[in-house]
Amino acid sequence: MRHLLLTIRYRGTRYHGYQVQQNAVTVAQTVQDAVERIFGERLPIKGCSRTDAGVHANCFALTLRTASVMACDAVVRAMNVHLPSDIAVTGCREVPEAFHPRYDCKGKRYLYRIYNGTVRDPFSADLALFWKYPLDERRMDAAAQGFVGTHDFAAFCSSGSGVQDTVRTVTDASVTRHGDFVIYSVTGNGFLYNMVRIMVGTLLEAARGVYTPADVLHMLEGRDRSAAGPTAPPHGLYLDAVFYDD
Amino acid sequence: MRHLLLTIRYRGTRYHGYQVQQNAVTVAQTVQDAVERIFGERLPIKGCSRTDAGVHANCFALTLRTASVMACDAVVRAMNVHLPSDIAVTGCREVPEAFHPRYDCKGKRYLYRIYNGTVRDPFSADLALFWKYPLDERRMDAAAQGFVGTHDFAAFCSSGSGVQDTVRTVTDASVTRHGDFVIYSVTGNGFLYNMVRIMVGTLLEAARGVYTPADVLHMLEGRDRSAAGPTAPPHGLYLDAVFYDD
Repeated sequence: MRHLLLTIRYRGTRYHGYQVQQNAVTVAQTVQDAVERIFGERLPIKGCSRTDAGVHANCFALTLRTASVMACDAVVRAMNVHLPSDIAVTGCREVPEAFHPRYDCKGKRYLYRIYNGTVRDPFSADLALFWKYPLDERRMDAAAQGFVGTHDFAAFCSSGSGVQDTVRTVTDASVTRHGDFVIYSVTGNGFLYNMVRIMVGTLLEAARGVYTPADVLHMLEGRDRSAAGPTAPPHGLYLDAVFYDD
Repeated sequence: MRHLLLTIRYRGTRYHGYQVQQNAVTVAQTVQDAVERIFGERLPIKGCSRTDAGVHANCFALTLRTASVMACDAVVRAMNVHLPSDIAVTGCREVPEAFHPRYDCKGKRYLYRIYNGTVRDPFSADLALFWKYPLDERRMDAAAQGFVGTHDFAAFCSSGSGVQDTVRTVTDASVTRHGDFVIYSVTGNGFLYNMVRIMVGTLLEAARGVYTPADVLHMLEGRDRSAAGPTAPPHGLYLDAVFYDD
């Protein structure tokens, strides 16, 4: 059997998240259907992560096993014929038998896009959070530096995730402005449920000068979800990169 | 009566073009409905142009007359509450009684966006033409210079437009690359039916080195539609700016 790693890119607007659910259109189900049409059989796929409804991915990794000898570039082309226009396969390569897209993942990068114009933008309605009040991206960037390091992120985790160990390492966090867009980029070895969206909700409050990096450290130390900001909506969030040892 | 000029921005994907039609959802009809809800009466609106189904606008101008004393910024806010997320009012100002958004227009700028990646982009499926073969934007830009000047553009006009005078002046034309996006920008005093899309169809052939600016001049001189390239699809086209004397 060959073990294939596919990278996909998707606009999450139409989907009830990545993970297969009963009676809901999901990214995984849609990819699974395309795989079945191409390989002629139902092949289980394993994803690197789960994304919520409305969340997008510039790069999401998944694996499947097949006896097919179809070349990797032919797999990419065939998948893109069968997938709808809001999901694209961007790459395919063979990986060792023991590879697991989730457990072998060394880290991820997420982006959160905020449209900070004065009037909402018809072209990014589902692709960025619209925030019409002035945002000071330097204050947001300063507060974001409080996330960098190894911390217990319990205060930045929605309940119901069931995760015991809430310690994660954030290696990089930055807020930059590109015209009317303000982009939060965060890289780490792992992320808790809603962690990036709660970070963004907190940074939006930090933009008003409410929080310093020291305040962010206090929030982390308190492990109290209610001390952090609100959960920002899903449609600004992008899984941007997934890192593996090569 | 006050005479108001509104500028709007829209994603044309869902609409059967700008102009009101029977039994079809159009941008004009949707704006008209919002105007009626805000001003409490059916006020005729006049547009600066027509755009085809699937074509977008970064800036489109329209006028209406009203006895209402509602301030311009309140009109913008109210319209944006009532319009769907793919249309936004970006500005409002009073204009003289005799002003006409179409006849007083001194020029327009159009953009045409091409996504020139190797795999289609889920985020620009309806917002740019996907072209997977390498495009030499310098050759396209060189050929585009043949459009600049006052010419008879009959070869760059789809039949059925009913226009007699096919002479127009193009003041600026350029093709530039921004990562995987190739953008054609063209400014002129007026444009014939499908003129920009036929220009783009011609420039896509020019990218292979088929046409020089001299060849473009030959096409213009021949006034023969069949000598020019095909009509590029609508979803890459944006009305980008409308110019008036202020």
